[in-house]
Amino acid sequence: MNSLPIDGERLQRQIDELAAISAAPAPVVTRVLFSEADLRAREYVKGLCREVGLAIREDAVGNVFIRWEGKDEKLPAVATGSHIDAIPNAGRYDGVVGVLGAIEAIRALQQSGFKPQRSIELIIFTAEEPTRFGIGCLGSRLLAGALSLEKAASLRDPEGKSLEELRDQAGYGGLDMKQVRLAPKTYSAFVELHIEQGPLLEKENIPIGVVEKIAAPSTLRVQLTGVGGHAGAVLMPERHDAMLAGAEIALAVELAALKSGSPDTVGTTGVFRIEPGAVNSVPCRAWLEIDLRDTQLPTRDAALEKIEKSVAEICQRRGIAFVLERLNVDAPAICDQALVGRVLESGDELGLKVKKMISRAYHDSLFMAQICPTTMIFIPCRGGVSHRPDEYSSPEQIKNGVAVLASTLAKLASKV
Amino acid sequence: MNSLPIDGERLQRQIDELAAISAAPAPVVTRVLFSEADLRAREYVKGLCREVGLAIREDAVGNVFIRWEGKDEKLPAVATGSHIDAIPNAGRYDGVVGVLGAIEAIRALQQSGFKPQRSIELIIFTAEEPTRFGIGCLGSRLLAGALSLEKAASLRDPEGKSLEELRDQAGYGGLDMKQVRLAPKTYSAFVELHIEQGPLLEKENIPIGVVEKIAAPSTLRVQLTGVGGHAGAVLMPERHDAMLAGAEIALAVELAALKSGSPDTVGTTGVFRIEPGAVNSVPCRAWLEIDLRDTQLPTRDAALEKIEKSVAEICQRRGIAFVLERLNVDAPAICDQALVGRVLESGDELGLKVKKMISRAYHDSLFMAQICPTTMIFIPCRGGVSHRPDEYSSPEQIKNGVAVLASTLAKLASKV
Repeated sequence: MNSLPIDGERLQRQIDELAAISAAPAPVVTRVLFSEADLRAREYVKGLCREVGLAIREDAVGNVFIRWEGKDEKLPAVATGSHIDAIPNAGRYDGVVGVLGAIEAIRALQQSGFKPQRSIELIIFTAEEPTRFGIGCLGSRLLAGALSLEKAASLRDPEGKSLEELRDQAGYGGLDMKQVRLAPKTYSAFVELHIEQGPLLEKENIPIGVVEKIAAPSTLRVQLTGVGGHAGAVLMPERHDAMLAGAEIALAVELAALKSGSPDTVGTTGVFRIEPGAVNSVPCRAWLEIDLRDTQLPTRDAALEKIEKSVAEICQRRGIAFVLERLNVDAPAICDQALVGRVLESGDELGLKVKKMISRAYHDSLFMAQICPTTMIFIPCRGGVSHRPDEYSSPEQIKNGVAVLASTLAKLASKV
Repeated sequence: MNSLPIDGERLQRQIDELAAISAAPAPVVTRVLFSEADLRAREYVKGLCREVGLAIREDAVGNVFIRWEGKDEKLPAVATGSHIDAIPNAGRYDGVVGVLGAIEAIRALQQSGFKPQRSIELIIFTAEEPTRFGIGCLGSRLLAGALSLEKAASLRDPEGKSLEELRDQAGYGGLDMKQVRLAPKTYSAFVELHIEQGPLLEKENIPIGVVEKIAAPSTLRVQLTGVGGHAGAVLMPERHDAMLAGAEIALAVELAALKSGSPDTVGTTGVFRIEPGAVNSVPCRAWLEIDLRDTQLPTRDAALEKIEKSVAEICQRRGIAFVLERLNVDAPAICDQALVGRVLESGDELGLKVKKMISRAYHDSLFMAQICPTTMIFIPCRGGVSHRPDEYSSPEQIKNGVAVLASTLAKLASKV
């Protein structure tokens, strides 16, 4: 496997071409679920897969399955994949490396003459990013049965549009949502290639990470309703300013994360919108979305409860009505030790040092781990930066990741 | 003057028709400067003026002057007027009562056979509301020479569009901005009819207020730049979250207003936007607009300084870069006692009790007071509510205000 013909230049060119498909001008990448940019990006990637001669299937929520048929098509397939949607003001590597890198891995394996015993499937997951509906990993949650169809049907974007309406507009309306959940034993394994989104590999100058555990994520949505009015006329003691309640809540989120007792607890109020949003009007409504994660469930859950208590206390004191929703509260994922072993072997064979790690960011792997043995391959990214236009991994770093992925897929697809 | 034929039903119908010209569905009124709704509303009001046979002039920034020629056209005219733009999620009376009410007052005076010695002008001021450019009373500031043409040319809306660009699109591009500032002694007096936007007249069951003083307004804009990143990957102690700095600043504004030593100090952070605004991304930028007012200049200015110190302290502690701009810092306006006397007389003659008041909200009158004797006529509004869809004054309350305005204009236009 040392001599796999991986073409790092071609891959970099594809990464750059895909980055140009964005709702915002370069270097910013913005591709929100089912936006015009997301739909064009899907077409771009499907075009690459057709070039390699792979079969394409799509499901009702827009997950895309690209299959290289194995000699024994009845065996559960080996899966890899990631996502191509991007939050507003993002960069070009998050998710994309695991999709375009997998196509390059498959192409290199094909060129090397390798014939898989098990089929190999690349999955492009719908809406790993929670931008549109406030819930991340929409596609993989549904594949794994971790999100009910009732809950999915109740999702609304900030403009009030439903998932049904949007998937219909995107051309997925004719497909059956009941078919999205995968049958048991569809896959024998899932391996996702991804940039680290943290600084450790770069700091320690190690080219490859293998993930043993994915941190436990949770998301809250808080809707606050106070009383608006003229900024000049309503005296301070008479106010019920929804924005100020939101400001206190955001600071309470920070405090709960800082004082959780675990250095790994992170809390972020990433969405903070107010109405009417005019300088001379007391804000009557605020909408917050809060992301809280931890590698340990007990400290995460304690911080979550502390935040929920703070919301109630702040709103009562300020005379603000609130609706608090737990959009998702997920457990951490434990990766499969046999798979971790395959990645370690591949690194060894390629002369690439591999570090065992936890993933603080969550990924579709969190949900794939619920239905098959799963692990992730990490590559370094500059400064640990992600979700920003200056996100960067070098062509060499990406090529190393693709080599380890290809080698690992080959091992997994050869075994019966 | 007791028998002026004021048609309250017609006026109410016009108020309702104008309210239907809105960027948002009823009962919400949203008419932002030079939006499609604002332009349609201007056409609607100009149409009413043409019906009454009045001459219309417009200036380069979109102020509209509607003139009823007096017998001696060389005398400085008597002016009245207000605005028809509305903040997002507003109601139908703020500004509108002073424009449509003035047309009804002129119509009633015409029908009564009154012939003015001085001309009477109705001014519809451009952008009393600061929604688009963060600065209120744009039209009257420029009329009074209280805003330089350089400052006006530097204004940008949230999308980065300049005043030049927008007034050009709105059809005012062919007119000369240098002609906007009024020549000295253009007007002998200015009287603005307006809803109180406060609760006092309603509480005391008094139909008319006359304004002796307008509170001193000021507006700050704060732009915060921190460091973005992935909400899962950037640990808490490493963060420079622009939104959290904004949250602390908003709470500092509240505190500065509460602790100013004056019960009349009001501080509002009415604009609070963040980027990228994704739940799983640490906010890298925040944009705040702060409104601070007081009836007394010393307490207002002390609170302003306290807020500015807080911004610097919070940003230094959190490692956030900031740009703080004073968009406007205005003195209070002292109204003309002779004009106040004319309003009191008019109330007496009409059997309507008149209360002397201060205006906490600011108005175009604040700037008209810099170039001619000025006062305002207030009418009650339900619960003191304004800048909300449930803003309300009854047809009877509005008719009383129009009667006092008409009577006062007649007195002022008769005298030489």
